[in-house]
Amino acid sequence: MTFVLVHGSWTDASFWSKTVAELKRKGHAAYAPEYAGHGSLYKPDVTHEQIVQSVVDYITSKNLKDIVLVGHSFGGSVIQKVAERIPDRIHRLVFFDAFVPLDGQSVADQFPAELQDAFAQLIQASGNNTIPMPYPLFRDGFVNTASDGLAKQIYQSAKPEPAAPLLEKLDLKKFYALNLPKSYLYFTSDTAAPQGDKYGFNPAQSGHLGQFRLITGNGDHMTTAYAQPAYLANKLYEAARD
Amino acid sequence: MTFVLVHGSWTDASFWSKTVAELKRKGHAAYAPEYAGHGSLYKPDVTHEQIVQSVVDYITSKNLKDIVLVGHSFGGSVIQKVAERIPDRIHRLVFFDAFVPLDGQSVADQFPAELQDAFAQLIQASGNNTIPMPYPLFRDGFVNTASDGLAKQIYQSAKPEPAAPLLEKLDLKKFYALNLPKSYLYFTSDTAAPQGDKYGFNPAQSGHLGQFRLITGNGDHMTTAYAQPAYLANKLYEAARD
Amino acid sequence: MTFVLVHGSWTDASFWSKTVAELKRKGHAAYAPEYAGHGSLYKPDVTHEQIVQSVVDYITSKNLKDIVLVGHSFGGSVIQKVAERIPDRIHRLVFFDAFVPLDGQSVADQFPAELQDAFAQLIQASGNNTIPMPYPLFRDGFVNTASDGLAKQIYQSAKPEPAAPLLEKLDLKKFYALNLPKSYLYFTSDTAAPQGDKYGFNPAQSGHLGQFRLITGNGDHMTTAYAQPAYLANKLYEAARD
Repeated sequence: MTFVLVHGSWTDASFWSKTVAELKRKGHAAYAPEYAGHGSLYKPDVTHEQIVQSVVDYITSKNLKDIVLVGHSFGGSVIQKVAERIPDRIHRLVFFDAFVPLDGQSVADQFPAELQDAFAQLIQASGNNTIPMPYPLFRDGFVNTASDGLAKQIYQSAKPEPAAPLLEKLDLKKFYALNLPKSYLYFTSDTAAPQGDKYGFNPAQSGHLGQFRLITGNGDHMTTAYAQPAYLANKLYEAARD
Repeated sequence: MTFVLVHGSWTDASFWSKTVAELKRKGHAAYAPEYAGHGSLYKPDVTHEQIVQSVVDYITSKNLKDIVLVGHSFGGSVIQKVAERIPDRIHRLVFFDAFVPLDGQSVADQFPAELQDAFAQLIQASGNNTIPMPYPLFRDGFVNTASDGLAKQIYQSAKPEPAAPLLEKLDLKKFYALNLPKSYLYFTSDTAAPQGDKYGFNPAQSGHLGQFRLITGNGDHMTTAYAQPAYLANKLYEAARD
Repeated sequence: MTFVLVHGSWTDASFWSKTVAELKRKGHAAYAPEYAGHGSLYKPDVTHEQIVQSVVDYITSKNLKDIVLVGHSFGGSVIQKVAERIPDRIHRLVFFDAFVPLDGQSVADQFPAELQDAFAQLIQASGNNTIPMPYPLFRDGFVNTASDGLAKQIYQSAKPEPAAPLLEKLDLKKFYALNLPKSYLYFTSDTAAPQGDKYGFNPAQSGHLGQFRLITGNGDHMTTAYAQPAYLANKLYEAARD
């Protein structure tokens, strides 16, 4: 299989490094593109469209075909738009604890009002339309199962997140008309979105997909990619296979 | 213990073959009756009452007593009605990812409207009041954790399901007046019913029981019975014991 | 670390005996005070305030500092009030399948109406404002994953619970203004509160905390403390660490 792994917010392509290695060790091809405005390409005023374009360019420039396109967290909205652009190159979409905006919604629309308000204040204070992630929020929301040391290590990659792509209302009519196979990988200790019927990754975000294949696992939002990459690679494989 | 195992829709008594063997290996008696209209008795126009009668006849003809009566999926509605008929032969009811209609409801009433509509179209197209299960829906809804090969193998048993028993509104007043011990075995990757408060096997269907003992496990709707029968047998034992 | 473990209803400090031993074996200090009206101090007319005072007295008399204060079940409401009184001695609060009343609510307010009604009848019948726990309810609600023998053994500690502390509306304004780190340990087979968005320990009770760190585990309401104390101790450690 050929995996293309799209990371989420407050991290960069290094999020996937260990998982890429594990997938390759299992005999798959695996790519984790750095996308516009993030990591070495850091740019506070990047747009959602620029992010999508950079992933599309990556896939077409390498002429990747029949890919399993994986989106984590915010990356869910990225693979929705990439799928609209190059559906013929995609074998299956895998949403991994990912946001799945409905047509006309933003990623931020998926958050409870209190979190949207907290982000608005952080954006205001940033002066450059970014959302710096305070460590306590990161610790409790993204790496709740990690050790103290690993939590702080993972936090090193958390640059202030460009806010515009999170806030942009997305036209997803074409995505919701596509007929691509879809899986949702849900880790049951993930509280980056509040658990439950209203905001939970599963069943709320996953439910936006209509028909999908659910795979569940133990883990939180980010820790598994660092602490148990072989487990994550195996779960991605279970989500990806026919 | 004496187990009587009642299968669900889109399968037949062979669903339980490996689990019966495991229960016997543990020293229990275990029976998996083929019920009216299914498997070797396949008949598209079977009724819910005929199914119930065939299970009652099986138990009484073998003079089974003090039984743990297990219903899987649609089989939940069958054991509700069997319990009304022969409560004195039943030690405990175990609902395994089972539908538990309330009095006056059908099994299909437990599904979301979109699924009811999809089934209505399949029934219409069938010409003989059955619901053929398309493979993609079976793959994603019933065997989501299986390998590709096992998924296709399990699908072999999926004859077009007689629709009438699923659609019949059931008088369950007597069931809800019974005072039999009840357990609910819930596998947390089961998406045959959409997960969550409204349609999920747990807590929505289980909650219909009032007081019950919850046992949870890893697995989806059907795969465990084929891939991990010893695990399933052990979970059934945990659900069944006093 | 220094753990102070506050038990719930229908049990006493012996609930924690094995967990205390495991925490000590891992090199932590661990205390499980018997609180007013329970265990050897059994008194049907104890008040919530007397319970809280007895825990405060225990901690201050031993001059314990920088403690991880753990509350199980009803004990959640106790640690809320203890935290109001001696916040400077507390490093982190850990709610373990605990009730977390909002300001002005009682613990009983967290139960569904039917359970409140059932308790009202048991109180009425008791003649001394206690709630005797019928074994079938205890078996299904508190120790659902236990063996028959262990379930009965655990039930030995279940004296009729003084009702007043469960029914008292609590002023929790100060608690909700505190800024202490909080974790919630949720065991996914726990049905002491009905699972789901409305009454479930997670996400309903946990959600009252606002920001918190979620740790999940396998287990029911009480069994793990007796059958797998090392596992529980490890989960408490994961919830407690920075």
